[in-house]
Formats: sequence, C-alpha cells, structure tokens
Amino acid sequence: MAFILAAKHGEMQNSVISIATGQGDLTIGEGSCTIIAGPCAVESREAYLEIALLLKDTGVHILRGGAYKPRTSPYSFAGLGLEGLKILAEARELTGLPVVTEVLDPRDLDNVACYSDMVQVGSRNMQNFTLLREVGRCRRPVVLKRGLASTIEEWLLAAEYILDAGNEQVILCERGIRTFEQMTRNTVDIGAVALIKELSHLPVLVDPSHATGRRSLVAPVARAAIAAGADGLMIEVHQRPDEALSDGAQSLTPEGFEALAHDIGRLARLSGKEFI
Amino acid sequence: MAFILAAKHGEMQNSVISIATGQGDLTIGEGSCTIIAGPCAVESREAYLEIALLLKDTGVHILRGGAYKPRTSPYSFAGLGLEGLKILAEARELTGLPVVTEVLDPRDLDNVACYSDMVQVGSRNMQNFTLLREVGRCRRPVVLKRGLASTIEEWLLAAEYILDAGNEQVILCERGIRTFEQMTRNTVDIGAVALIKELSHLPVLVDPSHATGRRSLVAPVARAAIAAGADGLMIEVHQRPDEALSDGAQSLTPEGFEALAHDIGRLARLSGKEFI
Amino acid sequence: MAFILAAKHGEMQNSVISIATGQGDLTIGEGSCTIIAGPCAVESREAYLEIALLLKDTGVHILRGGAYKPRTSPYSFAGLGLEGLKILAEARELTGLPVVTEVLDPRDLDNVACYSDMVQVGSRNMQNFTLLREVGRCRRPVVLKRGLASTIEEWLLAAEYILDAGNEQVILCERGIRTFEQMTRNTVDIGAVALIKELSHLPVLVDPSHATGRRSLVAPVARAAIAAGADGLMIEVHQRPDEALSDGAQSLTPEGFEALAHDIGRLARLSGKEFI
Amino acid sequence: MAFILAAKHGEMQNSVISIATGQGDLTIGEGSCTIIAGPCAVESREAYLEIALLLKDTGVHILRGGAYKPRTSPYSFAGLGLEGLKILAEARELTGLPVVTEVLDPRDLDNVACYSDMVQVGSRNMQNFTLLREVGRCRRPVVLKRGLASTIEEWLLAAEYILDAGNEQVILCERGIRTFEQMTRNTVDIGAVALIKELSHLPVLVDPSHATGRRSLVAPVARAAIAAGADGLMIEVHQRPDEALSDGAQSLTPEGFEALAHDIGRLARLSGKEFI
Repeated sequence: MAFILAAKHGEMQNSVISIATGQGDLTIGEGSCTIIAGPCAVESREAYLEIALLLKDTGVHILRGGAYKPRTSPYSFAGLGLEGLKILAEARELTGLPVVTEVLDPRDLDNVACYSDMVQVGSRNMQNFTLLREVGRCRRPVVLKRGLASTIEEWLLAAEYILDAGNEQVILCERGIRTFEQMTRNTVDIGAVALIKELSHLPVLVDPSHATGRRSLVAPVARAAIAAGADGLMIEVHQRPDEALSDGAQSLTPEGFEALAHDIGRLARLSGKEFI
Repeated sequence: MAFILAAKHGEMQNSVISIATGQGDLTIGEGSCTIIAGPCAVESREAYLEIALLLKDTGVHILRGGAYKPRTSPYSFAGLGLEGLKILAEARELTGLPVVTEVLDPRDLDNVACYSDMVQVGSRNMQNFTLLREVGRCRRPVVLKRGLASTIEEWLLAAEYILDAGNEQVILCERGIRTFEQMTRNTVDIGAVALIKELSHLPVLVDPSHATGRRSLVAPVARAAIAAGADGLMIEVHQRPDEALSDGAQSLTPEGFEALAHDIGRLARLSGKEFI
Repeated sequence: MAFILAAKHGEMQNSVISIATGQGDLTIGEGSCTIIAGPCAVESREAYLEIALLLKDTGVHILRGGAYKPRTSPYSFAGLGLEGLKILAEARELTGLPVVTEVLDPRDLDNVACYSDMVQVGSRNMQNFTLLREVGRCRRPVVLKRGLASTIEEWLLAAEYILDAGNEQVILCERGIRTFEQMTRNTVDIGAVALIKELSHLPVLVDPSHATGRRSLVAPVARAAIAAGADGLMIEVHQRPDEALSDGAQSLTPEGFEALAHDIGRLARLSGKEFI
Repeated sequence: MAFILAAKHGEMQNSVISIATGQGDLTIGEGSCTIIAGPCAVESREAYLEIALLLKDTGVHILRGGAYKPRTSPYSFAGLGLEGLKILAEARELTGLPVVTEVLDPRDLDNVACYSDMVQVGSRNMQNFTLLREVGRCRRPVVLKRGLASTIEEWLLAAEYILDAGNEQVILCERGIRTFEQMTRNTVDIGAVALIKELSHLPVLVDPSHATGRRSLVAPVARAAIAAGADGLMIEVHQRPDEALSDGAQSLTPEGFEALAHDIGRLARLSGKEFI
C-alpha cells in the first residue's frame, strides 16, 4: 500500500474529528454515528431555511446543501454560489447545526471555509489533485467522496494528499461506484466500508441517496451501512421532492427521514455506538 | 419488466418456502432469517462429518457443501461427485439438518435431488438455460445465485425460467458482482437486495463469503445484508481454513461463525424476524 | 499464468485449424482472414436457404445460424432445434460452405457435431465446464466466445478445458465485455485481441455484431479487429433485418456485408494475410 | 441527447481544427490523420530536447509532454511546472513542431496557453467543470480526454461545456475506460470512437499508450483506432523507457514509434486520409 498517513498502523486508535457547535462539540468517528442531511442544492433562501427548520429535531447532526453544484450538463442549475453559502450560514444560526457544502474551484475555497463548518470534495473531484492540496491547507474538516470509478487504494491516496498537506480532519464517504447495473444509479460498495475500517483510521460515511438514486432504497441501504460499521450517513432530504431542482427521485421527505433516523439510532446503539 | 411469475404484483404476499426436517418444517422467506453454512467443498467423509457436527448447534439452519465444483482451471479440485452427495446425505442423518449442494450438469440432477434437500444453481450457470429448465422440473427448492455480471432483470428472468417450468420454490442469492475494484473478490450489491424485495416475492439471501473473498469482511457484510432486508445468508465455514482445498481465505472458523450467528440473531429480531 | 496448453511458449508456431469443404481445405489462423456470417437464428428453411445463397459469393467463408438460442427470457424464440440443424446441413449442401452453430446442452452435442462443421460455445456458457469438457471430446473445431464478464485469463482457462480434454481445434472469439457504457450493447476489448495473439497460439476472431449491437458500428469495429491482428470475424447478416426474430438492430444486409467483406480483404492483404 | 453544440446535425460537416506551425497550418479532423507523440512527462531540459529532436522526422505532427502531472500518490513526481512549460516552448523552437500539454489548475491556464499550442484536459479532470469553463474561454485548441468511467454522453457534455463557453476547437481523445479486466491498464472503447464519428462533428483521437499500459499492445491498438475511423493518435515515446519517471512500461522507443508511424500512414491512406 502506498498510503502512509491514511493507514491504520498496528493498534493505533481511529481518528475522531470534532466540530464546535452551539451545543458543544460534535464528534465524528469512533463510537459515534453521525447523520448529515439536507437537500441536494440550496435552491432559495426560503426553501433552505424551511427544510433546515423541519430537520432540526429529527435526528440530523449536520446540515448539507450545495451552493456550487457539479452538473453533467452545462445547461443544468449549477447552484447559487456565494449567495448559497450565505444562506447556509444563516441556517446554521437559525438551527444551531453545523453545515457542510461542496467546493469545486480552489478559488472559492476561502469563502466556502468561511461560511461552512465542513468542506466536501465530491466524487468527480476525488482526483482533482489541485483541489485536494488546497483543502489540505484549510482548517476545516473535509468530507472526501469516493470517485465513481476509484479503487479503494486511489481513494485512500486522495485522502493522503489532504493529510500530507497538513489537514488531519479527513472523513471518507462511500457514495456508490459505477458498474454495469443500471436499475440503481450506482452500486454502493458495502464491503469497501468494512475494508476501510480495517485499512485506515479515518471515519467513513455512506451516502445511500446518490448511491442508489431511488428513494425506496435509501432506508435499507442506510441501515446496511451502519450494520457494516460505517460511522455515519449523508442523506438527501427535500420538503417537496417532486419539485427539487436536482436529485428529487432519491430525496426523502422530512417524515421519511425522521423514521429512518429513528431506525438508525436503534441499530447504532445495538453496535454500541452513541447516537444523540 | 419482462418477468411475470417472479414479479410482485400489487399487494401480493411474499413467497415462503418450506423444507421438511427431523425437527419439523423450516421456512425460508417472509419473517424468517435463514443461515446456510458449511465448507466450500465436501473434501472427504471425515472432514465433512466433523464440520457438520461442529456446526450443529451454532445457529446454522441448512448445511452446504459442494460435490460438483465449478473451477476456473481444469487442473483444480472439482469435487467428489456422487461420493460427495452420499456424504452430504450422511451428514443430514447425523445432524438432522437439511443440506444444499450445487448442480452443474443436467445429467446429475436426479442424483443431486435425491441426496439433498435443496439444489443450487451457481453464478456461472445463472444463464445456463438448459440447467434452469431442468431444475424447473424437479421437486426441490432451488437457490439461484446471481451471475457475476448479470443485471437484476436478467437474474429475475433466470428465476422466471425455473418458475415457468413449474417449480415455484426459487430462492435468490446475491453473491457479489464483478467490478473494477480488486481489493475484494467481488462487490456485493446491497442495493440489489433491497430492490429485489420490492420487485419480487421471492426470498433473497446474501453470500458474503464469495462476495468479499476476505474472512474479515464476512461478518460486517453479513450484518449489512440482514439490515438491508435479506431473508438469510450463505456462509463458508471450515474447521481448518488454511488447509481448505478451495476458498480458505474467505472461510470462517466454526467459532467465528457462531459469534456471527449470534449477532445476526440480534439484528434479525430487531427487524422483527424470527431466528431460531 | 495457469494455462499451459493454450499458452504460446517461446517461438512456437500459431495453430492453424483446417476445415474440409467442397472446394478443398479452409484454414483458420496464422496468415488467413476468415469470415463467418449469417443470421442470428435459423428462423425457417426458406429464410435460411435464401440468405445462404445471397451470401454465397460475397466473401463469406463459413455460414452461421443458431438452432439452439440462449435467450434471456423464457418467452423468447429459442430456435428450431434439430430441425434447424438439418436446415444448416441443407444450406451446406447448397452452397458448398461449411456451417457453424451453437450448442447449449451436452445432450445435443452429438447432433450438433453431426450436422455442422464447427461447434460454438456461447459467451453465457464460457464457464459451463460440463459443456467445455464435452466439446473437448468431440472431433469438431470449437469456437469459444469470451464470457461477458470473463477475464482474458479465465477465457484462456476455458480453452484449456477443451484442449485438456483432447480437442486441439479451439478458436477464440471476442464478442464484447460488459461495462458501464450503455450506448453500445457491450464494449469490444480490442486490446484483448492483440494480447491473446501474444499469450496464446490459438486463432482469435471478433464478433462486432454482438459487441456493439448497432448496425452502423459493425463495419468500423470489424476493420479495427483486423487491423489489431484478429484472424477473422463473425458477423450477423439478415436479408430483412427489421423482420429478424432476434438481433435485427445489429444485422447487416447482404449488400452491407459484401461492401464490408471487400474492405476487410484490402485490410487483410495490407497486413500480409490471405483473403480468398 | 442533451448535447447540442457537440452534436452532428443532419448533413453538417465535421469540424477541422487548425494549428499554425513554422511549416504552415496543421489541420486536425476530417481527412487528416494526426499523430501526437512524446514522453509522458517533461523530465529535464536535456532529456526533452533530445527526444524532441529524435522524433522530429519520424512522422509526428505535434509533440506532447507533461509539465503538470496528475499523480495518484502525493509522493510521485508531479512534473516541473512552469519550467517544464518553458522547455516545451524551447522544443517547439528547435523542431518547428507544435506542442500540447495538460493543465490541472485553472490558475495555471494562462501560462499553459502562453507556452503551448494546444491544451489538454486529462481524464481525471473530464468532469472538473471549473476547468472546462476556463479552457472554454481560452484561445487554444483543447484535447479533452474521456474520463475513466465516463459514458459517451457525459464525455460529449463535457465537450459541450467548452463549446458553450465559446471555444469551438475541441478535440476528443479516447484513452481507455475502467473495466474488470486487469491484464491491460484500461480497456480502449473502440466502438465509442466509431460512435462519436456518428454523433458528433468533433475530431476524435485515441491514446493507445494509456489505454493498454503495455508497450507491445500500442501498435496493434493504434492501427485498430485508425481503421475504426479515429482522426489521429496520441502516443507515448521515450528514448530510454526503462528510465522513465512515469509510464515507462507503455512507452515506445523512437525506433518503435517510427515503424508504427509508417504503418499508420499506409492505413490512413487506405482510408483516403491525408498523412504527411
């Protein structure tokens, strides 16, 4: 294995990443089960604050929402940019929950790091080495999604770029790989989750929404992730999924999310994990 | 969808398959969690009876063991054939547990159906339509493994062949698909398990041993399978994995299996399933 | 590498396989460029004899046509069986061209070998080891198609089964592998063709019809195959593609085939190959 | 299809891209066969000028060499950066040949466009939409490599980003996709080359070096590409492949390259293409 800083050596302890919140520190990793939830994109101030409040007491630990959206077509909605970042910051004030959002361009990183608590590198940028080195220099925890066709080793080496640049707060996120199967959007690699826990000390989340692309599969795959040892989940929730500007088909409603969070809590406790 | 008999229509009930045992009927499907376990191959009478007795009271419901082994190379151990079938029957007598074994050649089917309680069609034969039609004419429940590169639709259409030929006792088994990832032997498609439960009334098992090829991943992936809604598991167990003629690297020891079966029982009960 | 009989050792010569025809021996392999053509299935006596005569003087060396068809769905046309074999034999009489057809069931092999000049093992049966051993015992050349998700090594090991059983007349056929790309039916692995010529002494053909699933791509991929070193082609041709019972979308018309055969002849001669 | 500017509509003509050179304009696309060659990376001034001179009269049309290298591991040689760009410019002066090099970071684009004649977006950045928009604003032709796991549609949509931003000089380059096969580095999708010629007016090249990762396969796959209709090739050549800092195993020697270029010329002329 060519990764060193991302590797678990002997009996070393798993990394725990802390995020300061209004209610004290939130920890991700060893012994915790962390749920990130929210809509795919920040679509408007009203809509985002509405969903943030709806999610507030349903079991979510961190809010998500894209201000800069990587879109396959140049003609699709690409996010509100800086305005979206400010809405995220406002939602944090309103709810007391930390927020995470994706960065696409190294030139936007200062703003992203300023307005959010955690920075996400998406799957299409997992091998954007320029961006990896930049987030490696920032002070925010980084959620590093696995590339669509990236091996486990390449994924850990991408984490190594960030660690090597000085940022120890790396959280991995499995979000499905691309295979021949077309009935689901991607194929979640549940074995990779378990293998990462062996090979690395870094926390690993699972995103069942992008991985499956089907609302009805989000809950069973989320449960599977926790049962396999994942340290948490990243889940898309929208108050009106049918009107979502992106990813509506895979978004839960707030009610669906609350029921899932309850199930996840039971499973996490069965595995001896804390779930507040 | 081109499958009809395998499809779940409206509110129809899920299929339940019964196997008569010395201790009464064993049911597979809706509401049950069934564990099939045993070595990859029946290697000798002594070895097989030994592992059968070791497994007897550890949570296993059905014993497995290959008498006819599909092997990538013509120079590998291909099983004991008819002698292996007789050993399986002897193990059944000894333990009171039903046995399942794979059939490769339609000309062996009468013997396989005579000596075992359940017939397995392996992943390499999932589209061996000759064999599918033959097992469709036999009176035994059939475990139909998903092909390495078969879509969910092709898998259900393979089941349709068996159902259409008159055998309603089909049990699906996800065993990993082939992807670019090489750190695990295959990639278990956990989303497919959940999707099958939507699309079809047939029970679905997961084989985490073949899917991962790594002993350490068997337990987490097994737990994930049950959490995702699988109706049971098929697990390789060997009393001396390092001496196994095939698949030693992915075989649990009887002790490892017993611990896993205990975990699975807790998970199954959490999901409201019966696990005896 | 675990294959021995299929391997090219040092400076050994490539295998050449001969088929007796009314016009003398036809050779496949080293120095030749062989084209197999015909419809996917033998649909009726009239239709098959018609296409056979239409193809007679267009550059085809061997006629193809399926009497036993492996079909994903049990409800699709599965071929005429023994009647189809007899039609193939009649077409051979009529045209003087040898014929090749697929065998699915070991119990049909005697008939298939009796009525045809060459036996085909299809991609779904590449690891049907029972069938491989049987065709290894017959006296006919065998076209062994690569499995949809089979590695080059597994493919050569499948050939090894046939060689090890005593049949030295094995011809490989690349027909596309299954990948994430869905705009073409499969992805023809052109590098595998070149690699096989390094690793093995066996002839290798390419089937651009099944590989691409699109008529317009058959000619460019066929040319690519010959340029990469393939020893020949297997091409689907139908006199009325839009009425074909299977694979119409990828079938050439006889006119399209004749133009392609002309191009292939020029390319083959440019590579120093004989093309009669 | 969601791409508009990249699509071929009706009988529209294919795009031809011109690059001014000391010897007049070089054209890429319709009717031409263009070869880009050179080492993977600019390793030093001496080494690069040496290989540039060795290649000068061997059939190459454009020199390549990486100044910024995307590397899986943060510990691998990542290129000489600006110094590398200056060496490329010096090689252009010395040989009269245009040069192409990859850009990774939007902040380096001005320099890359200043020192080179053509800009490359690598496969790992095919969906780096920030970078795509930036190269869309520059005045240089852009070689857009297909992502490792990108569909043909996603690839054309990535081209659409560049076209939509105002740069019409886009050249596609197939460089192999990621599949289960591990004997070759990637699987070159030869059918995609032919399909792109149907769907789009943009020129398409093939890179057989990265696609196969094996020196011995470069020539056969290069020939296949031209036979399938590709408008040119991108080939790695190193004067001492065994000492290369990257990709030595797939690099041709200058002698090997010259022999290949000769073959390619014959094939191109057979297809009615100009090859000077």
